[in-house]
Amino acid sequence: MKEKVYLFSEERAEGKELGRNILGGKGANLIEMAGLGIPVPPGIVITTDACKEYIEKKHPTNGLSEDLKKEIKCKLQDLENSLPEARKLGSETKPLLVSVRSGAPVSMPGMMDTILNLGLNQKTVEGLSEETENEQFALDSYRRFIQMFGNVVLEIDHSEFEQILENHKRQEGIQQDFELKAQSIRRIIDDYQELIHKKTGKDFPEDTTEQLHQAIEAVFSSWNNERAVFYRRLNNIPHDLGTAVTIQSMVFGNMGNDSATGVAFTRDPSTGEKSFYGEYLINAQGEDVVAGIRTPKPISLLEKDMPSAYQKLFSIQERLEDHFRDMQDIEFTIQQNKLYLLQTRNGKRTSAASLRIAVEMYNEGKIDAKKALMQVDPTGLPSLLTPVFSTQLKQNAIQEGKLIGRGLNAGPGAASGTIILDSSRARQASTKGEKVILVRAETSPEDIIGMQHSVGILTARGGMTSHAAVVARGMNKPCIVGCSSLRIDLKGKSIRFITDEREVELKEGDELSIDGSSGEIIQGSLPTEPSEIDQLMNQKVDKPSLTAKYFLTIMEWADKYRRLMIRANADTPQDAKTARFYGAQGIGLCRTEHMFFEKDRIMMMRQMILAENQNERKKVLSSLLEYQKDDFIHIFEVMEGLPVTIRLLDPPLHEFLPHSHEQDVELSKHINLSPEEIYRRSKLHKEDNPMLGHRGCRLGITFPEITQTQARAVLEAASIVQKKGIRAYPEIMVPLVGHPKEFVLQKQLIDSVAEEVFNQTKETIEYSVGTMIEVPRATVQAGKIASHAQFFSFGTNDLTQMTLAFSRDDSGVFLQDYIEHGIYEANPFETLDQEGVGELIKIAIERGRKVRKDLKIGICGEHGGDPKSIDFFHHQGLDYVSCSPFRVPVARLAAARVAISDSS
Amino acid sequence: MKEKVYLFSEERAEGKELGRNILGGKGANLIEMAGLGIPVPPGIVITTDACKEYIEKKHPTNGLSEDLKKEIKCKLQDLENSLPEARKLGSETKPLLVSVRSGAPVSMPGMMDTILNLGLNQKTVEGLSEETENEQFALDSYRRFIQMFGNVVLEIDHSEFEQILENHKRQEGIQQDFELKAQSIRRIIDDYQELIHKKTGKDFPEDTTEQLHQAIEAVFSSWNNERAVFYRRLNNIPHDLGTAVTIQSMVFGNMGNDSATGVAFTRDPSTGEKSFYGEYLINAQGEDVVAGIRTPKPISLLEKDMPSAYQKLFSIQERLEDHFRDMQDIEFTIQQNKLYLLQTRNGKRTSAASLRIAVEMYNEGKIDAKKALMQVDPTGLPSLLTPVFSTQLKQNAIQEGKLIGRGLNAGPGAASGTIILDSSRARQASTKGEKVILVRAETSPEDIIGMQHSVGILTARGGMTSHAAVVARGMNKPCIVGCSSLRIDLKGKSIRFITDEREVELKEGDELSIDGSSGEIIQGSLPTEPSEIDQLMNQKVDKPSLTAKYFLTIMEWADKYRRLMIRANADTPQDAKTARFYGAQGIGLCRTEHMFFEKDRIMMMRQMILAENQNERKKVLSSLLEYQKDDFIHIFEVMEGLPVTIRLLDPPLHEFLPHSHEQDVELSKHINLSPEEIYRRSKLHKEDNPMLGHRGCRLGITFPEITQTQARAVLEAASIVQKKGIRAYPEIMVPLVGHPKEFVLQKQLIDSVAEEVFNQTKETIEYSVGTMIEVPRATVQAGKIASHAQFFSFGTNDLTQMTLAFSRDDSGVFLQDYIEHGIYEANPFETLDQEGVGELIKIAIERGRKVRKDLKIGICGEHGGDPKSIDFFHHQGLDYVSCSPFRVPVARLAAARVAISDSS
Repeated sequence: MKEKVYLFSEERAEGKELGRNILGGKGANLIEMAGLGIPVPPGIVITTDACKEYIEKKHPTNGLSEDLKKEIKCKLQDLENSLPEARKLGSETKPLLVSVRSGAPVSMPGMMDTILNLGLNQKTVEGLSEETENEQFALDSYRRFIQMFGNVVLEIDHSEFEQILENHKRQEGIQQDFELKAQSIRRIIDDYQELIHKKTGKDFPEDTTEQLHQAIEAVFSSWNNERAVFYRRLNNIPHDLGTAVTIQSMVFGNMGNDSATGVAFTRDPSTGEKSFYGEYLINAQGEDVVAGIRTPKPISLLEKDMPSAYQKLFSIQERLEDHFRDMQDIEFTIQQNKLYLLQTRNGKRTSAASLRIAVEMYNEGKIDAKKALMQVDPTGLPSLLTPVFSTQLKQNAIQEGKLIGRGLNAGPGAASGTIILDSSRARQASTKGEKVILVRAETSPEDIIGMQHSVGILTARGGMTSHAAVVARGMNKPCIVGCSSLRIDLKGKSIRFITDEREVELKEGDELSIDGSSGEIIQGSLPTEPSEIDQLMNQKVDKPSLTAKYFLTIMEWADKYRRLMIRANADTPQDAKTARFYGAQGIGLCRTEHMFFEKDRIMMMRQMILAENQNERKKVLSSLLEYQKDDFIHIFEVMEGLPVTIRLLDPPLHEFLPHSHEQDVELSKHINLSPEEIYRRSKLHKEDNPMLGHRGCRLGITFPEITQTQARAVLEAASIVQKKGIRAYPEIMVPLVGHPKEFVLQKQLIDSVAEEVFNQTKETIEYSVGTMIEVPRATVQAGKIASHAQFFSFGTNDLTQMTLAFSRDDSGVFLQDYIEHGIYEANPFETLDQEGVGELIKIAIERGRKVRKDLKIGICGEHGGDPKSIDFFHHQGLDYVSCSPFRVPVARLAAARVAISDSS
Repeated sequence: MKEKVYLFSEERAEGKELGRNILGGKGANLIEMAGLGIPVPPGIVITTDACKEYIEKKHPTNGLSEDLKKEIKCKLQDLENSLPEARKLGSETKPLLVSVRSGAPVSMPGMMDTILNLGLNQKTVEGLSEETENEQFALDSYRRFIQMFGNVVLEIDHSEFEQILENHKRQEGIQQDFELKAQSIRRIIDDYQELIHKKTGKDFPEDTTEQLHQAIEAVFSSWNNERAVFYRRLNNIPHDLGTAVTIQSMVFGNMGNDSATGVAFTRDPSTGEKSFYGEYLINAQGEDVVAGIRTPKPISLLEKDMPSAYQKLFSIQERLEDHFRDMQDIEFTIQQNKLYLLQTRNGKRTSAASLRIAVEMYNEGKIDAKKALMQVDPTGLPSLLTPVFSTQLKQNAIQEGKLIGRGLNAGPGAASGTIILDSSRARQASTKGEKVILVRAETSPEDIIGMQHSVGILTARGGMTSHAAVVARGMNKPCIVGCSSLRIDLKGKSIRFITDEREVELKEGDELSIDGSSGEIIQGSLPTEPSEIDQLMNQKVDKPSLTAKYFLTIMEWADKYRRLMIRANADTPQDAKTARFYGAQGIGLCRTEHMFFEKDRIMMMRQMILAENQNERKKVLSSLLEYQKDDFIHIFEVMEGLPVTIRLLDPPLHEFLPHSHEQDVELSKHINLSPEEIYRRSKLHKEDNPMLGHRGCRLGITFPEITQTQARAVLEAASIVQKKGIRAYPEIMVPLVGHPKEFVLQKQLIDSVAEEVFNQTKETIEYSVGTMIEVPRATVQAGKIASHAQFFSFGTNDLTQMTLAFSRDDSGVFLQDYIEHGIYEANPFETLDQEGVGELIKIAIERGRKVRKDLKIGICGEHGGDPKSIDFFHHQGLDYVSCSPFRVPVARLAAARVAISDSS
């Protein structure tokens, strides 16, 4: 018969080879530490097999099998024997206290929680009291044990214990638990035991073995409690894994001045510098270090306080870092001069530190480049690229009460400037050299120019994927959205921040600072500093900083390992330049509509939309053609030799139309229509559900001249730059295709224009025509579409909207509830919904590649810059992902990491 | 070697067994008639194999192979020999004229069209002239031949010939072609031939064999012309089928008074009565009968005019009906006393006639019940259920100039009443006993009460699937939408119909008549008659009419053969009653939101939505509960013993909210909020894309108390009727599920309520909980959803919106263009898009049934009443379709027809 109980201690690490499935996650980790000879408080692990057997054979009265009890007893003796003093479970002089924890192979909420201090009873508590010479500590430990046991094992509602505790505290007139005197605690214990007797009809078990058995049974049973079953069902975790039980002897750092407790890092977690770093408290418990009641000392002082323990700890931390090949975050306790490691795990660190640690550990020969890349979290990179406030100055301002509001940290980075409430005034102010913070209730496409002319954006409404948030991240501008305490008075040109405590009013023109990385809104102007990498990019420094240097190294390594190509979404030559600096290998999405929002162009655009016939439209389009050609020429020049995917006009036309009477009047001065007629015609373009309306290739079907003009602009521009000796590779992308015939009709238009242009210019351009896959219908029709289209680019933003029937702009109302209920784990507009949208993507790829083996496939939605989504795209065999320029480094690193994970 | 040319004549019908793939559609049909011994003008068919060979071997100069030419020559001689007189191609005295037509296996636009009168040249035309003693006829035939040949074979633009023709007509000062004198035609012919020489560098071929060969080559080549290739590519027709060529001798009904031409039906196509029916003209051509220049005589007179030909025709028509087992529509020509059948096909007929023909042919023993069902077009049935105008009175009114507008015939039937422009006034007027025609720019859910109180609905905007159209069809109310000439002045309470010719203004209160079957809008009041079936349903007649009787017979037969169950979408007890009369086997969709639009309830609903917390909401909900319970009690009573699927609240909440300041004020009298506060809170519910917003089960997730209340209303109602001994089978349906967890959470709420209700009432109800599948995500997640859901019902309206990204309300702007471009063949909101939406449905069924074998699957969108869509649902193995009550007969018949097609 296979053993079901394993021991770990300083001398032994049984069952190391069995792994998480048998030992559970917690058990396996502890045994690994023990196996390294690291001093851990010894303990035993009962396997998941024992749990499965228990569940199968369980009768309510049976309890644990005799065999298992025997095995536990046996191992427990081994455990007791392994202890420095003859400590025993139930001993009245040297009582062994243990913790009991569940440990499933997969981390799983809903299972039984920890029970601490098991082994205490009326007698052993006195032993502990004498031993520690701390009656209050011993009694409080006992009280907590009864409460945990009563709640978890005996299933008495937590609040009933709390009620008793509160009553006593009220009687004593005290606030905090630790203020309770021993005598009071004794009374509370009496009340607890009375409660238990009343509820269960039995006394609280005095027999410590009985305590242990009941606790183990409770862990086993919790595998099948309602919450756990529900969680497994929802997350497709098999019901037959079972849970292990870890029983570990307790150690105390508060057994006198030869005891201590602390936390430490093997390197400085904020800078990454290689120096042992941490803090500790003499004669204290773990909680005390974090509770902040006493001020811990820096770890370097431990060398003086307890030289031998320190030296041991120092050498252990080195070994742990070497073993786990990463910077470690360590918890330790020294009990009467004996050092115990309670936990080690990879330490959290700042993004800058992660670069330094990774590259330096590589330089030290501790890790290879792959491992180095796996140490750097890609999601932290954008914060290294944006300007920041000086930490000290910001802290000062906050202490002076200048923190007047908070919102969602939608676009990282810091910005200071003058408040402007309107996009056209923002433009004026910026032209005069002012730094503008644009403050709006929310933004819409007509605010794009205003946003471009601002250093930061603040909105009262919207979520992380609102228009303002998405566009700001694309522009890499600091942005705070959804600041619900913000009220805007457009007439009075003022804003107010209203909270329960106070109300702060500011006028347009006043100074404001926003920290888009934290969501903090600060009154007045705070100086910002460009990021070190930004300084390097703009060649403002002779020598790169350490962070910038390490950043470039990591990026270089990433490019060696990734399979995915990385492109950027860039609509302007400036965006394209940034994209190239950050390593984009092409443009995956150049939105042409943004090109039409500039002053002169928007007027023409409006004239075109309101035209009553094709001839009128064609006339205006030919003027727009020249503007657009110019845009493309500059983009092609910047992207020399790299592909540029240009999407044909996509948004519903009414987005371009006037939105106010003033705008109607202004437009009427430019075109031969009265403001009333403009209003009337504009109204015809209003839609109930514009997302599902007259947009995308539907525009090109009803107004073929738009497609023709855009295709001509692209190809003539390519021809012009090519004559200068610069290679251009335009990829023309038809948006919102749902039916293969839509694509065929658009492609025919484009190909005819190409033929004309080539004849005129006597020059041939290597161009291709493909489509966005963003309508669910397109995913199932991908085979037929691929027989005509040369490339696919998944438009995962819209595909998510249609597949989930979630409007990005409206889903804020319920999305929070959805995430709280665990329906979606993350916002599906940030991290791809793999089960739904991903399934359609799989179908599309399979059907598309079946028809066209060399079909080029990319993705250009927001998800192109999200590491989890990039993993998915890598596994689906995409050729590239495209994201906003400032997320290109994220994508490069994420693509490398998933390729490395795959190969290992 | 296989033969490539086949002859058909009165004596011979070669290659009958070869079928359409070899002989093409046209050739195969003609050969079938010949095989029956029916006199058809003899001809030859060149097979598709010959075409394929031609295409493979073709060199521009080669022409037809010598083998093929020989075979054609040979068969042509057989053809000539089979003719009564020694008529020969190219003969100057008895010239044989032939038609040349393409005939692909699949009907295919883009291929070469007909060439008539081939065989005419400078000499044969004189022969024809002498023979027919009609120079003008002979010359005009020649002119037309040259024009057709020049255009189709020699590829000279049609307009060039028309230009010449127009010039001559202008010179002569005449309008119509037939007014041209022989001398003029000769000049035109000269000009045509000059044109041909100029364009091709060659003379028009005088050699008739050469004419024939060139024509055949043109047919073969047209298989690969651009339009044909494009059409095949778009419609997935294989490129290697090839086309056949049919060459048929021409006959003339205008060769004197012993010649005639006519059309006839084997039964009366308007009543279905068994009597030979038709018309003819002596000494005339086929076109003359339709052109209306001469008035044709009824066919019965032919018996006197040409007794022998008539008798032959009469016996042939009987044989054709017997052979094709359906009423036939026949074209015939008598050339010099000899009868020729030019065509026979199943005749078009009215819906009433189709019932009569089907049942009487069955009674005559000519067909079985299956065949009878296949003869009745289900789409015509609804028109038999709606009231109609007396044909004579309507014609009179139109002749008096009362036809003042036209719109889309969105809901069949006729209605007369007084114009009302507002839903609440409609209700008032109707309560006073007035018949109301509701006239609106468009309708929204708050108009439902107004629509219920109207006899007909007319809107200025919207398409066949606009809100007004869908709801009106559901209520079986006559409805015209999209009347673009209609202007509504709400302030002035008047409407105007504006056309180029005139403007008619009417006031609220004036009389108006609308014919929803034709789209005609008529000024004044026209009396209507209830349909015969309607009279039977409402037990207003003692004995059913013939149409009603045959209707019931056909329905009874349909039920014998269909596999699909048919349910109805019904929201009220009245709807449910109608549904049951028409044979519904349950309710497939009971929308609960309609129940909340009545006066008192809408106020409560508004109060509930605007409530600031759960307690307030719960209070209002408990009042609404009682109303809703009442509704369900009545529906369960009507539907005794049958399942009733009740959908939880679905629409975005703002649909219930006030839409005007007046409504804000009115609401403020009912609830403790100022109109300003009501306005403010209502505005928070506005959405950019409500279709993708906070609706469906999302309401039940954020406001679980709504789901709980509705579940309680359903189950308490069921319990109450069950106590009266009436069996209720409620099926509670959760709308808009995209994620299995959404469903699980809602089902848990419902099941807990059920447990409570069962405990309270000491009664158990057999209920089930299932979901709408209407979000694309749900289709790919159907497996996981099915592991919790007991039934699926495809909500194909919304599923179409999401899958195609087509807003039903907004797609009108481009859908027409889409259908014209052949992107979609039909409006996807009327006929299911099988390739897109259908593909997702297939995926959902496969994944759902894999997990739950007995998963009940239905569909409750508009498509449930569409025959083509029903075919698809039958083939996908659905259990039922659900449609509006008045379409239940359509669905019953359609379901039977597809089952019969399958089994045969």
